[in-house]
Amino acid sequence: MSDAKIRLHVDHPLGHGQAVPLSEAQSHYLTGVMRLAPGAAILLFNGRDGEWRATLTTAGKRGAIATCDTQTRPLHLPPDLWLLFAPIKKARTDFIVEKAVELGARRILPVQTRHTNADRIRQDRLQAHAMEAAEQCGATYLPEVAELVALEKLMSQWPADRRLYWCDETTLDQPARLTPAEGPAAILIGPEGGFSADEAKRLRALPIVTPLSLGPRILRADTAAVAALTLWQASCGDWT
Amino acid sequence: MSDAKIRLHVDHPLGHGQAVPLSEAQSHYLTGVMRLAPGAAILLFNGRDGEWRATLTTAGKRGAIATCDTQTRPLHLPPDLWLLFAPIKKARTDFIVEKAVELGARRILPVQTRHTNADRIRQDRLQAHAMEAAEQCGATYLPEVAELVALEKLMSQWPADRRLYWCDETTLDQPARLTPAEGPAAILIGPEGGFSADEAKRLRALPIVTPLSLGPRILRADTAAVAALTLWQASCGDWT
Repeated sequence: MSDAKIRLHVDHPLGHGQAVPLSEAQSHYLTGVMRLAPGAAILLFNGRDGEWRATLTTAGKRGAIATCDTQTRPLHLPPDLWLLFAPIKKARTDFIVEKAVELGARRILPVQTRHTNADRIRQDRLQAHAMEAAEQCGATYLPEVAELVALEKLMSQWPADRRLYWCDETTLDQPARLTPAEGPAAILIGPEGGFSADEAKRLRALPIVTPLSLGPRILRADTAAVAALTLWQASCGDWT
Repeated sequence: MSDAKIRLHVDHPLGHGQAVPLSEAQSHYLTGVMRLAPGAAILLFNGRDGEWRATLTTAGKRGAIATCDTQTRPLHLPPDLWLLFAPIKKARTDFIVEKAVELGARRILPVQTRHTNADRIRQDRLQAHAMEAAEQCGATYLPEVAELVALEKLMSQWPADRRLYWCDETTLDQPARLTPAEGPAAILIGPEGGFSADEAKRLRALPIVTPLSLGPRILRADTAAVAALTLWQASCGDWT
């Protein structure tokens, strides 16, 4: 356990003695909001070099600089798992992104389905939200939030080796259990209105698709996302 | 699938031909907000008699009455699982209650621990929130939200036959897997600051306690609640 409480994601190499310039927002947060002075310890990660304890060497609301001391944790990449979901209301979409980071998805893909209400997303806002979640949950890696893509387009280019677990609310009679499996994977959560008949037909026809049932009650999309990520991590991922 | 879209929880017997007076809030919602007229179909459940299709026989913003036609689903009680959690910020506490209902906890117990910030809760507000969640998720049962109780008191009276799964963030090295087990169970989620040393010692000493690990990242309390409920339902509950 380090004495440093604040963890920040940076896009800069980290290593012994490395000086790391912090962004304007981070500088403001550290020195303006948290009132840290030179000599204070923070933690940095960049998704490549693990987590480092760093000392604030230059304070200032604009151009703070921290210098790396020691590596506190090695890089821990989450398993090769994608989460595909149809964006819903703002608060619940934010929630899904936050939970996907905590639960160790490597890539987050908002998808547009027939019954998706949103026809665009604020990718930059969701990516910033993912960064905050990674800073909070102790991850040493930052999942990428992709731009909104049509489910149809995604399916037409689907990689043959990436198993797709499809949370199909019409298969309530199947047990909610995942067979341990290796290799790349993805979870698909539908919109509140479910998938269209065409979409369901197309998904059912793909050999790499496995339907996944999530119990006898109707789950909201955000609950389904957390539940499916949990089942996958506990059976196939890094919770085993 | 019924033609009725709106599901309401009532505290009144349901049965063929039974007239059910609706509360003022429900009457206002049906006739004032949703503009339903006599003859419209709704669904009712009371936690005892399953789900019934009912016809609005008397409209009116105050004293609407619906008359039961046919049972659309039998009563499905969730497994005998309690969720114990330390209340956190309002939005996340609401979220935990909503998710516990969707994921099929039978009883929801807010507990006060050494590091819990809240020293009281609005039990009536949380119970109303649970009711809305039950109406939404198609449950035929409404879990009870208990009053806030001290963890110490709860532990001193803990039923000897109710296995307690303790989400202990210090046991990250254990696999996140539950052995299928029968009988009453409970899940305990700690506050953001974790359990105190005394609390952890006491929990570890109880023979009926099983520590449960939820992977290598730090989960927020709300994420941990959903993840633990999911693992339990998929291994021991009604998702199997």
